[in-house]
Amino acid sequence: MPDHAIHGIIGYTITPFDDEGGLDLNALDLTIERMIDAGVHAIAPLGSTGEGAYLSEEEWTAVAERSVKTINGRVPVIVSVSDLTTAGVVRRARAAESFGATAVMVLPTSYWKLQEDEIVAHYQAVGKAIGVPVMLYNNHAVSGIDMSVDLILRIVDSVDNVTMVKESTGDIQRMHQLYLRTDGQLPFYNGCNPLALEAFAAGAAGWCTAAANLIAADNIELYEAARTGRLKDARASFFRQLPLLDFILKGGLPKTIKAGLDIAGVPVGAPRLPVKPLDEAGRARLSAILETLN
Amino acid sequence: MPDHAIHGIIGYTITPFDDEGGLDLNALDLTIERMIDAGVHAIAPLGSTGEGAYLSEEEWTAVAERSVKTINGRVPVIVSVSDLTTAGVVRRARAAESFGATAVMVLPTSYWKLQEDEIVAHYQAVGKAIGVPVMLYNNHAVSGIDMSVDLILRIVDSVDNVTMVKESTGDIQRMHQLYLRTDGQLPFYNGCNPLALEAFAAGAAGWCTAAANLIAADNIELYEAARTGRLKDARASFFRQLPLLDFILKGGLPKTIKAGLDIAGVPVGAPRLPVKPLDEAGRARLSAILETLN
Amino acid sequence: MPDHAIHGIIGYTITPFDDEGGLDLNALDLTIERMIDAGVHAIAPLGSTGEGAYLSEEEWTAVAERSVKTINGRVPVIVSVSDLTTAGVVRRARAAESFGATAVMVLPTSYWKLQEDEIVAHYQAVGKAIGVPVMLYNNHAVSGIDMSVDLILRIVDSVDNVTMVKESTGDIQRMHQLYLRTDGQLPFYNGCNPLALEAFAAGAAGWCTAAANLIAADNIELYEAARTGRLKDARASFFRQLPLLDFILKGGLPKTIKAGLDIAGVPVGAPRLPVKPLDEAGRARLSAILETLN
Amino acid sequence: MPDHAIHGIIGYTITPFDDEGGLDLNALDLTIERMIDAGVHAIAPLGSTGEGAYLSEEEWTAVAERSVKTINGRVPVIVSVSDLTTAGVVRRARAAESFGATAVMVLPTSYWKLQEDEIVAHYQAVGKAIGVPVMLYNNHAVSGIDMSVDLILRIVDSVDNVTMVKESTGDIQRMHQLYLRTDGQLPFYNGCNPLALEAFAAGAAGWCTAAANLIAADNIELYEAARTGRLKDARASFFRQLPLLDFILKGGLPKTIKAGLDIAGVPVGAPRLPVKPLDEAGRARLSAILETLN
Repeated sequence: MPDHAIHGIIGYTITPFDDEGGLDLNALDLTIERMIDAGVHAIAPLGSTGEGAYLSEEEWTAVAERSVKTINGRVPVIVSVSDLTTAGVVRRARAAESFGATAVMVLPTSYWKLQEDEIVAHYQAVGKAIGVPVMLYNNHAVSGIDMSVDLILRIVDSVDNVTMVKESTGDIQRMHQLYLRTDGQLPFYNGCNPLALEAFAAGAAGWCTAAANLIAADNIELYEAARTGRLKDARASFFRQLPLLDFILKGGLPKTIKAGLDIAGVPVGAPRLPVKPLDEAGRARLSAILETLN
Repeated sequence: MPDHAIHGIIGYTITPFDDEGGLDLNALDLTIERMIDAGVHAIAPLGSTGEGAYLSEEEWTAVAERSVKTINGRVPVIVSVSDLTTAGVVRRARAAESFGATAVMVLPTSYWKLQEDEIVAHYQAVGKAIGVPVMLYNNHAVSGIDMSVDLILRIVDSVDNVTMVKESTGDIQRMHQLYLRTDGQLPFYNGCNPLALEAFAAGAAGWCTAAANLIAADNIELYEAARTGRLKDARASFFRQLPLLDFILKGGLPKTIKAGLDIAGVPVGAPRLPVKPLDEAGRARLSAILETLN
Repeated sequence: MPDHAIHGIIGYTITPFDDEGGLDLNALDLTIERMIDAGVHAIAPLGSTGEGAYLSEEEWTAVAERSVKTINGRVPVIVSVSDLTTAGVVRRARAAESFGATAVMVLPTSYWKLQEDEIVAHYQAVGKAIGVPVMLYNNHAVSGIDMSVDLILRIVDSVDNVTMVKESTGDIQRMHQLYLRTDGQLPFYNGCNPLALEAFAAGAAGWCTAAANLIAADNIELYEAARTGRLKDARASFFRQLPLLDFILKGGLPKTIKAGLDIAGVPVGAPRLPVKPLDEAGRARLSAILETLN
Repeated sequence: MPDHAIHGIIGYTITPFDDEGGLDLNALDLTIERMIDAGVHAIAPLGSTGEGAYLSEEEWTAVAERSVKTINGRVPVIVSVSDLTTAGVVRRARAAESFGATAVMVLPTSYWKLQEDEIVAHYQAVGKAIGVPVMLYNNHAVSGIDMSVDLILRIVDSVDNVTMVKESTGDIQRMHQLYLRTDGQLPFYNGCNPLALEAFAAGAAGWCTAAANLIAADNIELYEAARTGRLKDARASFFRQLPLLDFILKGGLPKTIKAGLDIAGVPVGAPRLPVKPLDEAGRARLSAILETLN
């Protein structure tokens, strides 16, 4: 795949709220600095983890602009610009580009199920509206839409700047097909945390993970072992991280990552209701897991 | 079940747009008058059919206010007030009550999967905020959340004004359990069009349907046959309607109902992108089906 | 549908075993007499309930022959002749016909998933081998094969003596399609106990049920109410039976029906291992449910 | 895991039939010799691939005895002894042990769904009946029973000679849990062909595969690359094999492997009806895939 492609550990930011439920952009800066200091290869604001779907348009814009400014070119920035309407995605994609995003990420979310032609047109609209690359994001668990490998490749073929694919279904066979059918030339990224070892084994260019807020060094260690072909080291690193990866997947990312940051001394507030903060038993379990990793 | 409960055919409005994609409230009035003239027993604006999820807050408010005003007490009005955040639902529920809604309908929609406690708290928040009844709405196909019968009854038990349940999973066994476990005292409503016959057979208080925009007289005929225990008439009426009910379910309600209204001479514009208007082949098929019904 | 079609309550026999695990054909006779005395409209030996899949070839033959002989033409007999191999089904179908069966029932069971052509050929082989009608049986929960309505109608069209369809998926929409696409001319039978009310509402010709071993009078009452179009009576009868119907579905038919017969004073032995007899808590619950029905 | 555990490539035999549909034990010998010559680490007769479920008791016994005799201790032999009844499994397990099998494999197949206690008792019965190790086999796609990791570990804990687990669900997370919860001490084997790379990455002791009838050298190459930690070589080997692995999975193993052996000059007859031989288009596709591998 092309040398300039984004690769490695792509850390997903949470969106911190203050006690009144408003944005806490200073805390956002802190979480960004933590990940850059730890060595992540790219940062992705406003994704699923970033509660992008729960923000008002003004809040979304403020977080996008601040994130790009704080990162300030030190690593690539992939801004999630998903919205229920095509018009909304186009508006957000243009804003992200204007702030200086390296790329944007688009998950087709929809209340009403979409036909394939509707999804292709959705990507065409956003692709045409901007000049930076688009990362196609497939995650039916949060979006209700499951794009087949056929559909993904159709979109990649028909929209010039859709050049990367983030696969979060957790089905390794999808990655196999993406690899086989493009002779390994299409960069794909894993968004299912407990699949990190196998995704790298199957040739994933990167791992999109909110875990980098808490254990970026471990995430990077796994990536480096896999990249340099040291399978046993990769396996050992993976199984050490797996209890945490399972925990954040099952518990929900905003809830568990926010609790983990609080445990780590970086208060970032609660998720937005109806999502509640992690309860006491969950926090105790998370603390215990984190202690095994440091 | 209580005499005063809403019953019969509850017609769901679409939300008309003009050529620029803005609201067309005069067309909304027309669709409301059509259903009232045809004899529906209640009207429900801003549900799934009404593209409530695709509207801005200002648009949502305008449609809610206008709908209640146009209906003007001639039939009960159930306004859908669903939103991704609890704060948003509370805001909309208060607005609907202030406009004069008979009841509100709440579908827990969420990007991140919710735990049962979070769903209960969501209903408690809205229940406490208003004085009118709440219709709980279960429809995982559009919301991504499937509430079990256990959870539904827990909510009904713990929130005083949650007094009605709309079941749209299409699983008749859920209705059986709702009936059995409340001795038939909890009014439940069917939201799965091709289940209309069986839902009435199983004791449903009503049928929530967007089909009433197109074939309200048939919908009412089925209800009356079932209500008066004439099974053979109900069956004959149902099978006559079934091709249309299947068609609108598979095609998506806003898309097919808007096309059907256009065919009937009531132009209401296109759905919001990424949902496209019904294509030509679909329109031809829909016209053919509608002709068999008139 | 044709006047001569089998209709009403089709009682499924269990296969009684003695203390050593061998066949107890005298007990089989008792269970058959009970159902005939109660007024069932047909009897079906060796189905899922009859543990046909767990018998040796000699045992299967003995039960088939004895059942037909005991029934002795008093009601139609539908013998289940399913087997993993096509050769086995043909052999059993010929045996059943030679004993005097009114019809045979065939469920395509397979270890390896079958393609549609293979299933069609399977039915063609058995259809050609015998002169009596074949009831096609669809039940993926036990067979691992789910036949679509398209496939079922293709088989009905291509095999002359496949003239009846037993649908046990519990999906009422399948029955709707069978009805719509044959103008109500293809007799279909319901094999999902908790769907009995709705299947009759949708026009099912009969109800295939092992419950007739325990509550045949109630089963018949529901059928008669539905047949004569008395919807409210049918609903009341159904909801009274529903706790039992749910219990036997969830518990497994051989296990629960054998326990129920034992409670009723007709000892029929245990199911074959690995299926165990109903445990004590289950027996207590079953006794309590049965008491509400008498 | 223990040094003596079976590891590497475990080749699954097909069961050859002659033109009359009877056993062809000479052809069976040929297929066994091919795999031993190619260097497989163990051989497994009468599994899913071996159509064990479609054989009469006499046929099953003949194949079991002949397989062990032909292999003659050159590699370990794991005989599949699954049967619908517990009595049948015990009988087959004892026979296999008496013939000299290294181990037996047990898949709980059942017509009626089994409760967990029933499955545990099933394994206890067979474990107690024999002195050789038992490989637990989980494959709901063919058996209709899906054993959770909890249940598998409960069986491993409660039956001394259940010492190996074959996981064929294709869900890599099951393997992760088996590894994590036994500190990597329980040997697990992959039975899902297109998961071979990732299963080895996750620490699988072996790969149970019918592909070894056709491309044993490639299978072994992948195993050796993974065993010695050469991730890039393993990935390259895997993607070269993947089209074949996908093809045999989707086409069904007896059908496709028998066709592949025929293409390779080893006629082994057709599968038993209702499973048909691979059709012409399938044979052409299989030939084309095999040519890329030699």
